[in-house]
Amino acid sequence: MRVSILGSGLMGGKLGTIFARAGHEVVFSYARSTDKLKKLAGEAKGKARAGTPREAAQEADAILLAVHWSRIEDVLNQAGDLSGKVILTCCLPMDAGNTKLIIGTTTSGAEELAEKVPRSRVVAAFQTVPSEVLFGVFESKDKETRPSLVYCGDDKSGKAVAAELIRDAGFDPVDAGPLRIARYTEPFALLVAQLAYEGEGGPELAYRFERFGR
Amino acid sequence: MRVSILGSGLMGGKLGTIFARAGHEVVFSYARSTDKLKKLAGEAKGKARAGTPREAAQEADAILLAVHWSRIEDVLNQAGDLSGKVILTCCLPMDAGNTKLIIGTTTSGAEELAEKVPRSRVVAAFQTVPSEVLFGVFESKDKETRPSLVYCGDDKSGKAVAAELIRDAGFDPVDAGPLRIARYTEPFALLVAQLAYEGEGGPELAYRFERFGR
Repeated sequence: MRVSILGSGLMGGKLGTIFARAGHEVVFSYARSTDKLKKLAGEAKGKARAGTPREAAQEADAILLAVHWSRIEDVLNQAGDLSGKVILTCCLPMDAGNTKLIIGTTTSGAEELAEKVPRSRVVAAFQTVPSEVLFGVFESKDKETRPSLVYCGDDKSGKAVAAELIRDAGFDPVDAGPLRIARYTEPFALLVAQLAYEGEGGPELAYRFERFGR
Repeated sequence: MRVSILGSGLMGGKLGTIFARAGHEVVFSYARSTDKLKKLAGEAKGKARAGTPREAAQEADAILLAVHWSRIEDVLNQAGDLSGKVILTCCLPMDAGNTKLIIGTTTSGAEELAEKVPRSRVVAAFQTVPSEVLFGVFESKDKETRPSLVYCGDDKSGKAVAAELIRDAGFDPVDAGPLRIARYTEPFALLVAQLAYEGEGGPELAYRFERFGR
């Protein structure tokens, strides 16, 4: 799969690296410098390269959007027409200081994003785990205890792409339903962040859903 | 501990039963009928009895508030002065049809409740698992794999009471911080409900936070 990273920061950089190591063709784009993108591509040790948001987006089978909420307009402008593209968003609608969600309850970041892109196929995914846990999960050998990762969206084939990439990253994909469920997954992401960064035990935090029948 | 149940429905009935079986003195109150309360008390097979909200609340070391959001004012009126009482709330601020949260993002049900009760010691707890999983977790023998249960609040001793009751119910208590974190735990509860009731696999759903170090 050709996977393009729009926003090669902590999340985008690590997920792009993981997707490349899992065998996908990855283009890193939209970082502070071209050198950063080239360094990421070089260290990914797979079919990875640096690119502009436009070239990254236009040839992609899947786009990972991983920018701060305040950069959404800018990165979408640079990427050009994304009609019909599968967009996985791990963006959270945070304020400039990253202290709180600025929208929720009656809408979500993922829904607002879907509104901005005509005929988009937006899937909310990779929002709910901190970047610090990604390599640990990817490299974990024990496939019986892989952690869950929730995703949601309104486009069936887009969700299939998301599920494949989630599985490739070492997680068990959990379909949480339509895109409006991002109203729940985005605050959940903040709960996980609270436990990861403010709780005891370190930020390498993931979660698993399990059933306990009587 | 004397634990009083305000709202003896699905959650309150089951949690009261579990607390009684764990050795606590439980008063069931506020159900559709006194017969329902007596039946619950009889079947709990511990130190459990039926009571009015007022007598239940006044003598309690901990109060479990487990009513529909629309009943909060009524049950608080019936319970009388709750100043200084430890109140565990598993209430979610849902609309009448139980389809969505009516507040969030900038506040939460738990915070609104704390505003209503002077000098209250509100802890948000037991919001994030469906009633269907409670007996399965309580009766599970494997203490190594107990699921997590997040709780949050601003009162340290109230939180200690919550943690004890969470542990007694068979869960691993996870301190999520101050009461405002209910802005995240309440939507998370809706995510769990979505997976439990709309997903595959049945409603006996719980979750566990785990760390995956590199």
